[in-house]
Amino acid sequence: MPEDAARTPADGRTPVGILGATGSVGQRMVGLLADHPWFRVAYVTGSERSQGLPYREAARWAQSSPIPPAVAHMEVRATRVTGEAPLVLSALDASVAGPVETAFAQAGVLVVSNARSHRMDPDVPLIVPEVNPDHLGLLEAQSAQPGGIITNPNCSTIGLALTLAPLHRTFGVRRLHVVTLQAVSGAGIPGVSSMEILDNVIPFIAGEEEKLERETRKILGQLSNGEVEPASVQVSAHCNRVPVIDGHLACVSVELEGDPKPEAAAEVMAAFRGRPQGLGLPSAPRRPLHLLPQEDAPQPRLHRDLEGGMAVPVGRIRDCPLLTLRYVLLSHNTLRGAAGGSLLTAELALAEGWVPGRRGTP
Amino acid sequence: MPEDAARTPADGRTPVGILGATGSVGQRMVGLLADHPWFRVAYVTGSERSQGLPYREAARWAQSSPIPPAVAHMEVRATRVTGEAPLVLSALDASVAGPVETAFAQAGVLVVSNARSHRMDPDVPLIVPEVNPDHLGLLEAQSAQPGGIITNPNCSTIGLALTLAPLHRTFGVRRLHVVTLQAVSGAGIPGVSSMEILDNVIPFIAGEEEKLERETRKILGQLSNGEVEPASVQVSAHCNRVPVIDGHLACVSVELEGDPKPEAAAEVMAAFRGRPQGLGLPSAPRRPLHLLPQEDAPQPRLHRDLEGGMAVPVGRIRDCPLLTLRYVLLSHNTLRGAAGGSLLTAELALAEGWVPGRRGTP
Amino acid sequence: MPEDAARTPADGRTPVGILGATGSVGQRMVGLLADHPWFRVAYVTGSERSQGLPYREAARWAQSSPIPPAVAHMEVRATRVTGEAPLVLSALDASVAGPVETAFAQAGVLVVSNARSHRMDPDVPLIVPEVNPDHLGLLEAQSAQPGGIITNPNCSTIGLALTLAPLHRTFGVRRLHVVTLQAVSGAGIPGVSSMEILDNVIPFIAGEEEKLERETRKILGQLSNGEVEPASVQVSAHCNRVPVIDGHLACVSVELEGDPKPEAAAEVMAAFRGRPQGLGLPSAPRRPLHLLPQEDAPQPRLHRDLEGGMAVPVGRIRDCPLLTLRYVLLSHNTLRGAAGGSLLTAELALAEGWVPGRRGTP
Amino acid sequence: MPEDAARTPADGRTPVGILGATGSVGQRMVGLLADHPWFRVAYVTGSERSQGLPYREAARWAQSSPIPPAVAHMEVRATRVTGEAPLVLSALDASVAGPVETAFAQAGVLVVSNARSHRMDPDVPLIVPEVNPDHLGLLEAQSAQPGGIITNPNCSTIGLALTLAPLHRTFGVRRLHVVTLQAVSGAGIPGVSSMEILDNVIPFIAGEEEKLERETRKILGQLSNGEVEPASVQVSAHCNRVPVIDGHLACVSVELEGDPKPEAAAEVMAAFRGRPQGLGLPSAPRRPLHLLPQEDAPQPRLHRDLEGGMAVPVGRIRDCPLLTLRYVLLSHNTLRGAAGGSLLTAELALAEGWVPGRRGTP
Repeated sequence: MPEDAARTPADGRTPVGILGATGSVGQRMVGLLADHPWFRVAYVTGSERSQGLPYREAARWAQSSPIPPAVAHMEVRATRVTGEAPLVLSALDASVAGPVETAFAQAGVLVVSNARSHRMDPDVPLIVPEVNPDHLGLLEAQSAQPGGIITNPNCSTIGLALTLAPLHRTFGVRRLHVVTLQAVSGAGIPGVSSMEILDNVIPFIAGEEEKLERETRKILGQLSNGEVEPASVQVSAHCNRVPVIDGHLACVSVELEGDPKPEAAAEVMAAFRGRPQGLGLPSAPRRPLHLLPQEDAPQPRLHRDLEGGMAVPVGRIRDCPLLTLRYVLLSHNTLRGAAGGSLLTAELALAEGWVPGRRGTP
Repeated sequence: MPEDAARTPADGRTPVGILGATGSVGQRMVGLLADHPWFRVAYVTGSERSQGLPYREAARWAQSSPIPPAVAHMEVRATRVTGEAPLVLSALDASVAGPVETAFAQAGVLVVSNARSHRMDPDVPLIVPEVNPDHLGLLEAQSAQPGGIITNPNCSTIGLALTLAPLHRTFGVRRLHVVTLQAVSGAGIPGVSSMEILDNVIPFIAGEEEKLERETRKILGQLSNGEVEPASVQVSAHCNRVPVIDGHLACVSVELEGDPKPEAAAEVMAAFRGRPQGLGLPSAPRRPLHLLPQEDAPQPRLHRDLEGGMAVPVGRIRDCPLLTLRYVLLSHNTLRGAAGGSLLTAELALAEGWVPGRRGTP
Repeated sequence: MPEDAARTPADGRTPVGILGATGSVGQRMVGLLADHPWFRVAYVTGSERSQGLPYREAARWAQSSPIPPAVAHMEVRATRVTGEAPLVLSALDASVAGPVETAFAQAGVLVVSNARSHRMDPDVPLIVPEVNPDHLGLLEAQSAQPGGIITNPNCSTIGLALTLAPLHRTFGVRRLHVVTLQAVSGAGIPGVSSMEILDNVIPFIAGEEEKLERETRKILGQLSNGEVEPASVQVSAHCNRVPVIDGHLACVSVELEGDPKPEAAAEVMAAFRGRPQGLGLPSAPRRPLHLLPQEDAPQPRLHRDLEGGMAVPVGRIRDCPLLTLRYVLLSHNTLRGAAGGSLLTAELALAEGWVPGRRGTP
Repeated sequence: MPEDAARTPADGRTPVGILGATGSVGQRMVGLLADHPWFRVAYVTGSERSQGLPYREAARWAQSSPIPPAVAHMEVRATRVTGEAPLVLSALDASVAGPVETAFAQAGVLVVSNARSHRMDPDVPLIVPEVNPDHLGLLEAQSAQPGGIITNPNCSTIGLALTLAPLHRTFGVRRLHVVTLQAVSGAGIPGVSSMEILDNVIPFIAGEEEKLERETRKILGQLSNGEVEPASVQVSAHCNRVPVIDGHLACVSVELEGDPKPEAAAEVMAAFRGRPQGLGLPSAPRRPLHLLPQEDAPQPRLHRDLEGGMAVPVGRIRDCPLLTLRYVLLSHNTLRGAAGGSLLTAELALAEGWVPGRRGTP
């Protein structure tokens, strides 16, 4: 870890590099870091096509808020290892993320990654901050210490895990059936062609069902003896792409121990709080789960922006003729499900002392 | 049954009245009856607003093919009982269909109805022609004979029943989980507001889940002693509205006796034929189920028009971690799932001698 | 004007009634008045269907931000004349707005209306606050003084007028050709059916082209001797409805005196400021017009929310082979083009002393 | 011209090669040639990625009708010059079309191209068969005779030219203003990203406005002394992309000599017929222009398929406050505007004896 970077910068905020900053998740990260109380953008990296250009020219900015001025004129760099910032957020494509993130970690940098490359590595924590913050303990097993790699889950897994966590703690989740209706922003830019999705639905997303099934078990698993034992939850997932810009909806049927009533489950979900709420992390929603009373909620366009897109609205909790209960959840896939999730994880890591050279929060 | 109507008309085709002809399903019926080999439109009825107007002015025609000239200039009538045609297709709204259809039946007319009003009446057949043509036998128990009422199921039930039928016959279906992604045309015109559905999904359709659960059991049931014993199949349904014009998609997980492999189920589905195919009914698809090999099929825009919208494409047959198998099906909701389904049922009724005064097909 | 209402309320803010508060523009008004520094909602009115219900039940809330708590539990009233608040914002439907607004004015209330009913009345100001604030002088001619009626223009006119104003002042606008691509929210809720607009465009909006042509001339006109002499600008308008939620786009070709270059026009537009900017009205954008440099801007989804939806982005200023110049403008039709426009007008009226019993701003 | 290819094939139909057959326009060509009475597909070519694969695997088939069986199993070839077929339809990308098409022509093949590469070459006819069939005479000037190159215009130009032609002949068109609302299929596959166009409109299409302005003048021009003198029509075009699958809409204001009334223009347009109608070409619509009486027509989803997508519906003919008349037109951009237009041109060329080695039609 280079001493220079670790030292308190002029404004006291921790410098952060953004890897793969020009894509759709990278743009969201840049947007969220504008005026962040703990972090400031130290540099941005991009693909060969972008390198050397000012960020505002390199990124095809597709957000409805303008490019933060502090970044607009930054020159986009190649994604080369540097210790200039003790922390990086990685929005790299999975095709390149693996070795690059490892190299940053070995250079003493803490990498919080949105890519799938290291998610299932036994010594890499897969974090939803409200659900399994203790899994950060896996970092101790990583050879790169004080550098290391933390991942956040697939965009469709995060919302599911947040709703399952309180049910699992209170009742025990045995198995579940989940069908997702996922927004096109989940596929990035250009991603899904308009010819594929206008007046249409695609009942398949490559690799997504496997990720949902596998990652859910790891997140709900137990850390003991430096290993995460996956939860023995059976998951059947079916993933669809729908013509929605942002917001993944999921229809869930779940089997719970003790056969609780919908009202009991609703109560447990509404009361759910996690460590980000306890610590008052800057990006933490006040309530991770919002229970909506309307019979036709949640809906992507109406509810995806609840608490800045960091809360997960839940609705239609009711009996299931086959398993125990059914409900619908929504999560903003590029905020809570990607950039915002990474940022909240980075805030957790800083607060708990995992960022090299930084002693907790400002 | 008025003798005049029953007598062979000039062109030998059976005259048919269309009740509620100006709405979205009624328009489809009008379109399908243009150049029909067995039927010709005798009259069209509509609400007060439409009465007395020529059809082309009364209907806000929303089909991509033009209004059939034979109907374009017909005057829209009030929906008053008449025996002028021995057969009527009813696209009436459920709020008015019940007593009107009963009155037509009692006047000796055979009513084939798309409305939900009589579907669950014990003596009214709920027909998917390939699945339960023998249920037409229930007509004998109706007091209105030779008039009577036949219904076709809800638009989302028809496709599901068609895929379950061969599995149920061969293996036995124990229970199933179905999540639908339904097109806006299912709600008629004006139906779903654009403000509700652009860039959005609505995870609720009033009454739809109950219909799916209840009607499926009746259709798969056994007729004996003049009654239909519902199949003992447990169904958990979740219905969503998506921004698609036509074509209801359904993600199905099903538990089958004997735990068959996906290949065995695929074979049984591909081989499925029913009475409409045997009889060569004019609107019958050559194959009720089309198994699509692509990993991302079926899709509404690409596959809803297979065999004139009367075939049901099926894809992604695969193991289910919870039940036995999973698959995706698509059905064209205003063709196979409504107007085309009614017409095929009417053709079956004519071919089997149920239309008053008509001895089978021309 | 009832003395009670005019007296400073507990919190010093002017009480405001909202007429027709449950519809799409009414909802936007309610949203914008949450935490407003000068105004507070005194009461909300609605149609018979809504009366007596708490607002949160009466309104089918379709905004992505939650209902402001102060209004959520207010009981929706009938739209009956009351002097309880010295100012009302009217989002009434044009079918009822005319006489109701007159009655409020005669009871001594200042009505700022979004309805078209009184827009072309000779003694009623039709205000775009940056363009013709002096037209408020027409109020003096209204018989209802101190009550009165002020209107804001049609949603598609406001953006056009804002871009024309600086060109007209500097160069003189002789004639123009405008083709609009208008969002569905402009038609309210339910408004445009999804069956009409998915995968489609409708090249007609009833009455819209006439409004654009007529209102533009009044807004750009001169007030003298208590009358507004319409500008002698020839306008050819064609209006289309497109599948966009919010944001009216307009493609404009304009003929200017003196044949200025695109650069000169751009400079004049970028420098444009009006009285709202001078007075620092709470809802005023810092810059009414934002000139965007991208070759494919402005776009509804990306740019409609500039400055809280109150700024009008302009792009593609270039030569026209037929007239002088061409450009593209975008305006948020339910913010700047309706609720936000009304509110800014109300702020202007308060600041300039037209609200009965209120001496300027807090 | 290889003798073999020119000889009558077994079934008497002229063999045709399709260059660039796997893209969106190529797919339409393949679809239209299924069961064509005059032509049969001899071979299909594609990019490196596709070569050697059977067509059904190489093409991401995105049409709602299935792949014609005769082509489904054809192996996709490299686009190498061959005289195997006397005629080729080119759906090549403009980035490669130029020299490849020239090479085919020099090998004695008649190339009918949808690419823009040769459209403005002085000796290359730019054909809308109903408008300027005599421009085929330019072929005589091409050095490659009997091979040669014919082009069809840009997808947005064809519909405009078809509506202008009868007006120009009868009255004379002096200048016009056109704003297009273009479908995403015009950009091919993947083309426009769903992230760019859902809930959005893009007010810019690279190069499109120039093409519209330039090509219109050439098509309406006069052939004399082996050269086409462009019509002296001034065109101001603005092109937008809208979220519609197929169908380009255009809002036109036109200045005509003699100031005719809308009724006179409508009469002239309705009566318009061209050589394809006279010759009874297989793909010719009975009427090139359909005048629709509804106040809100034409609309892409409802009217794009008129006469198999080969007719151009026109509506809202009315006075223009600035020029003479205004109207709206729609053309199916991948049928009449691309593949269908190329095919109709090929039919014209065959009928008039321009296909090497073929003496007119079968």
